[in-house]
Amino acid sequence: MKEEEKEILRYLKYCWETNVYLRKYPLKDWEDAYYKGKVLFFSWKNKNFFRLNKDFKFYPLGTFFNEKILVLGYPHIPRIYVLKTGLKRYLKYPFYAEEKIEGYNVRLVKVDDEILAFTRRGYVCAFATDRWEDFLPELPRFFEENPDLVVCAEVAGPENPFVSEYPSYIKEDINFFVFDFMKKGEGEFLNVSKKLELLKKYRLNSPEIQGPFDPEKDYQKIKELLKRYHLEKREGVVFKPDYEGNRVKYVTPFSNLEDLRVVFPYLGEIDPYFVSLRLIRLALNLYEFEEFKEEVYSVLGKNLFEETLENFKTERLLQETFRVRFKKESNFHAMLAHFRIAKVSIEVKKTEWKNGYFCVEFSKIYPKATQFWKSKLEGWGEID
Amino acid sequence: MKEEEKEILRYLKYCWETNVYLRKYPLKDWEDAYYKGKVLFFSWKNKNFFRLNKDFKFYPLGTFFNEKILVLGYPHIPRIYVLKTGLKRYLKYPFYAEEKIEGYNVRLVKVDDEILAFTRRGYVCAFATDRWEDFLPELPRFFEENPDLVVCAEVAGPENPFVSEYPSYIKEDINFFVFDFMKKGEGEFLNVSKKLELLKKYRLNSPEIQGPFDPEKDYQKIKELLKRYHLEKREGVVFKPDYEGNRVKYVTPFSNLEDLRVVFPYLGEIDPYFVSLRLIRLALNLYEFEEFKEEVYSVLGKNLFEETLENFKTERLLQETFRVRFKKESNFHAMLAHFRIAKVSIEVKKTEWKNGYFCVEFSKIYPKATQFWKSKLEGWGEID
Repeated sequence: MKEEEKEILRYLKYCWETNVYLRKYPLKDWEDAYYKGKVLFFSWKNKNFFRLNKDFKFYPLGTFFNEKILVLGYPHIPRIYVLKTGLKRYLKYPFYAEEKIEGYNVRLVKVDDEILAFTRRGYVCAFATDRWEDFLPELPRFFEENPDLVVCAEVAGPENPFVSEYPSYIKEDINFFVFDFMKKGEGEFLNVSKKLELLKKYRLNSPEIQGPFDPEKDYQKIKELLKRYHLEKREGVVFKPDYEGNRVKYVTPFSNLEDLRVVFPYLGEIDPYFVSLRLIRLALNLYEFEEFKEEVYSVLGKNLFEETLENFKTERLLQETFRVRFKKESNFHAMLAHFRIAKVSIEVKKTEWKNGYFCVEFSKIYPKATQFWKSKLEGWGEID
Repeated sequence: MKEEEKEILRYLKYCWETNVYLRKYPLKDWEDAYYKGKVLFFSWKNKNFFRLNKDFKFYPLGTFFNEKILVLGYPHIPRIYVLKTGLKRYLKYPFYAEEKIEGYNVRLVKVDDEILAFTRRGYVCAFATDRWEDFLPELPRFFEENPDLVVCAEVAGPENPFVSEYPSYIKEDINFFVFDFMKKGEGEFLNVSKKLELLKKYRLNSPEIQGPFDPEKDYQKIKELLKRYHLEKREGVVFKPDYEGNRVKYVTPFSNLEDLRVVFPYLGEIDPYFVSLRLIRLALNLYEFEEFKEEVYSVLGKNLFEETLENFKTERLLQETFRVRFKKESNFHAMLAHFRIAKVSIEVKKTEWKNGYFCVEFSKIYPKATQFWKSKLEGWGEID
């Protein structure tokens, strides 16, 4: 065993001795998980962490910890395909409908002296860590007064480094949308009433929250809400009970159509199942929203193929351009380091300081998608 | 080991000692393959065979043999997605374009006293075995004069028991389309010139065969042919060199659109990748046949969703109805036995003797597809 590895195991042991949440399981189990690559060590500047790469007993993928804190991975919320039957199967009065924002999920946590944003997989997100104070200026006061809470937020907008879809009402840059407060160590969420109170008190931007609703009596209201969201080009809704109970999500036909548009050209990078899944969801959207059938039928072909057909005319590498702005140049370099680790191929096109921000334009290169289409265009045969 | 199993192994040894094609590999290898479930024993009436369930050394899946014969599995032909580049990559003058018929592939072989039809997987097809003499009446003379050949044919039409798509020009019942003569034991095909001669001599029905072509000079001609096939609702083309060389296939946008229409309602039974693959092929069809873009865009949504949306309105089990006619009732029962082995759930709706044929109507029941859609319609959530 290398000295470095021994050092990491000593640190894991120290975390286990110091952090009560780890002692739920024997040290040996954690060590085994480390050997199996389920528990991974990483550092952010002068801070050290472990993150879970797979579910491990009670703790889901994306859980991260060190000697002082443990934050659970954000849970996957089951999707329902039909509101009429799904709402009453999972929810009862009172529940709320929160807008589901197209972006990426971060958990904001105060670690010693600084507030860090962690991605769904438990990495530190350099971009969200850099930018939260522009959008959630009262977060320091929030954490002083609520040291046991984690702030779960969606980062969304045309200038984010990860997701090419975004809500059409964000015209530039990004925003943070706080949608949950989670308890450190335990992973429980505050209920909606308490959440609304804290959002207001600390002036934290949040998704639209409607309710309370009853699953049967308010079905029409909820259907109208989703209809409006579709027409306003919004992604969908997460339904949350006020107190304990199930959460479920539902997305608009618009969102499924957009996913197809955005992903089809990049087949080869992503699982083809992604495409089938969106089509299945669309069919079930149309079961409940017959009024959108003509629209879906008329745009589906274009959404699927148009960009790909345009790409066929050029011979260049498939790539997607992102523009983002940072407060600190060092955080931009930390993001680049993250992309290297995640084996995402990046080409930086432009950097400039402007209005106090380090503005960056970069492309993600998709060699697998390029090859996927190129070999077919060049006439190579396949047994499929 | 059970007595029955010992008996099968003794028979395998006997086949190996008697049939020269098996002695290509040591007996031990064949026995190992049997233990691993790659070589399976089966019988058809008073005849015994083995078939390969997986590729085994030189012999592909679908190969079958006994002490007297060995017939290789019909090879998978690579698909090209673009004619312009694909033809010249794989073919040179002279090659032929044979219509690819939407049906199922059988290999007709004379075994002792009778002519049997074997499916792609190496089972005896009771239906094709029952019906070949209606469509290929000179087959007995063919096999007398050509005892070393296997006749490869597509069985297609509205009244076949396996495939719900069929060429629109077959208005009732089925037909046999002979597309290859294969050498027993070796698996080589006769070249196109020789094939044309035999087809004519024995008046064997065949797919349309055009050519000879040159891959560069005749590109426009071939493109026009595929355009006509698309408009005539035909599946596509298999390109075959006259002498040795590669074979490749290409399908029309029509065929891809039809596959989507026919398969989408039965997701749950079939791999969702099937859907993505057809969409990928369609995108590449449109690269070369821009003239069909509007048509594809206008029918795609309907083809994908319309039947599924209709199904949503009923609560019954998903099923597909087939009508077929047999000459002998015993062959119908053999087909039912085959469906039992293949775990296809069947409901016989009607049987009657009519004009000398035993006419059958039966449904295939799709419990997995039923459950796939039903659980979603009932509001069950999924983490997808």
